[in-house]
Amino acid sequence: MQGPLKVAVLGTGRMGCGIIRLLFQKKGLELTGVYGRRTDRAGIDIGKAVGLAEEIGIKISNDLPALLKKAKAHVVIQATCSRVSEAAEEIRTALHQGANVISIAEEMAYPACQSPLIAKELHALALQKKVTVLGTGINPGFVLDLLVIALTGVCWKVESITAKRVNDLSPYGPSVLAAQGVGVTPEAFQKGVAEGSIVGHMGFPESIGMIAKALGWEIDRIEEIRSPIVSRVKRETPFVKIEPGLTAGCNHTALAYRDGNPVIHLVHPQQVHPHLEGVETGDSIKIEGEPNVHFSGSPEIPGGIGTIALAVNMIPHVVNAPPGLKSMADLPVPAAFMGDIRTLLQ
Amino acid sequence: MQGPLKVAVLGTGRMGCGIIRLLFQKKGLELTGVYGRRTDRAGIDIGKAVGLAEEIGIKISNDLPALLKKAKAHVVIQATCSRVSEAAEEIRTALHQGANVISIAEEMAYPACQSPLIAKELHALALQKKVTVLGTGINPGFVLDLLVIALTGVCWKVESITAKRVNDLSPYGPSVLAAQGVGVTPEAFQKGVAEGSIVGHMGFPESIGMIAKALGWEIDRIEEIRSPIVSRVKRETPFVKIEPGLTAGCNHTALAYRDGNPVIHLVHPQQVHPHLEGVETGDSIKIEGEPNVHFSGSPEIPGGIGTIALAVNMIPHVVNAPPGLKSMADLPVPAAFMGDIRTLLQ
Repeated sequence: MQGPLKVAVLGTGRMGCGIIRLLFQKKGLELTGVYGRRTDRAGIDIGKAVGLAEEIGIKISNDLPALLKKAKAHVVIQATCSRVSEAAEEIRTALHQGANVISIAEEMAYPACQSPLIAKELHALALQKKVTVLGTGINPGFVLDLLVIALTGVCWKVESITAKRVNDLSPYGPSVLAAQGVGVTPEAFQKGVAEGSIVGHMGFPESIGMIAKALGWEIDRIEEIRSPIVSRVKRETPFVKIEPGLTAGCNHTALAYRDGNPVIHLVHPQQVHPHLEGVETGDSIKIEGEPNVHFSGSPEIPGGIGTIALAVNMIPHVVNAPPGLKSMADLPVPAAFMGDIRTLLQ
Repeated sequence: MQGPLKVAVLGTGRMGCGIIRLLFQKKGLELTGVYGRRTDRAGIDIGKAVGLAEEIGIKISNDLPALLKKAKAHVVIQATCSRVSEAAEEIRTALHQGANVISIAEEMAYPACQSPLIAKELHALALQKKVTVLGTGINPGFVLDLLVIALTGVCWKVESITAKRVNDLSPYGPSVLAAQGVGVTPEAFQKGVAEGSIVGHMGFPESIGMIAKALGWEIDRIEEIRSPIVSRVKRETPFVKIEPGLTAGCNHTALAYRDGNPVIHLVHPQQVHPHLEGVETGDSIKIEGEPNVHFSGSPEIPGGIGTIALAVNMIPHVVNAPPGLKSMADLPVPAAFMGDIRTLLQ
């Protein structure tokens, strides 16, 4: 490849802007276009949008087909939404332009889980256009699935898996805090869960689907439970004040059954300032099998930074991959490659 | 694929026999031949050799070309040696028969490191025969390289890496203990290192080569140090008695420099009964970068069981891979797949 690998980014929120900043640090890549859904962002120079000192001459566009036609991107990175149903149309548009797609939409980590028909359709379209679609992110996409699967690789057999991610929501803004039910009464929390406004973590069915496929397990059913983490102390962030007795977050768990037995247990309590009640953050994976395997790290791998890194670090693998819809378990492991990306392309 | 995937195993030592036992537990595979280098093992039924109650009708052969012709193996697993120079001829023979090859020879994890010409030749031959060659094992091949690389995937950039594996040599036999310099005086240890009879860990240059390639780093030089672990207490295994003042093992380290700065530090002290002096075994990976990442597990992933599992668990990935010589960083992560392997083949 003579010129740089051309990349377009969809989304100008916290994740999209982070992805753009990381792309600027990489060699052999060129940002050729940025799309934003919000009409009030159209026309803003992307240098200004991501906090650079100077304008860079690329303006945020609201017109995706026109933008992609102009960007001639080899790779489109999507950071606009969480659900397959919301992500699919932008992905279709990118595929029709002949671009590979990396999406950080949580459900895209394993879209066959929630949207099997759309997954099938995107796979067929990617095959037809000879490009690759990948969903990635810290979770789903890495900690509670890819790392788990990799660690089973040293096992003769696996009986059950427990993986836990304890994190700190303090850096997040109002929309994340609302979705995790932070700062409300336990009763309001239960009501929010029942009504669907408090969703907790998105990605348990996807992580379970990835693990089960990798191990050859048929899963009968998945039980998800969202419990309020009721604070006994005062906690405060720039966006929320929590008095004792109100919720500091959501303890979300999922239990997957195989032949009636629980085999995969994923645990993901998310709250602001967990250390105020002595809770240590971290990631932990326990495999019961032959042999038992236990790996853990503390504090947790930062979610935002990690998701941005994964989206960018997977670029060479996605360009090199055979066409079709892929998961992280189908491709080589990500790496923080710091040379000229073009030297990796096959 | 209608019939089972045919697999031949080269090597009938502890690793080869373990691989055969694990193959018997897998669905969709058939063991079609076993080769042993030792002439005194020829003709022994493999069921008897691996400790089954019954003979299985496959006898160990000393004639590799004849065996491979008869075995019609899709995959050959090699567990006969450690060095590329010792492994290459068996691999060539298997490739000429059109078989994919998985080798647990330590240097085959990244053969371009010690034997660039042979690596190039095996790559060309694999391309010509449209099959894949992979080196794997717990270390090199997994703990101190693949897991390290995967964890850098969440990083924007990496400054340096320290990875440590502390294990227990107590289960091993006389040849491993001798190569680690167990049970001798510190002077005899230094002499053995100087003469090359005490080698310590095999695989540091290979792990460093894999990591450096994944990160796009040029390494100037590697410093390897082998120090005696002098026991202050009495230690004993079925194969060695160690009085205080004699060696319990070898503390082997490697430091890789980039632009004059140390960037990869691998530490692997191996000894019998480390707990007798309060040493906890385990695996640990620390990445200094953006962000810092630290993952660890204790006790260490068992080396023998893990290497056997990796060799067998990589079978579907090797069969599906594009042709050529590959490392673990080039293929999808291993998984303890417990269904019919044929359902994974593309």
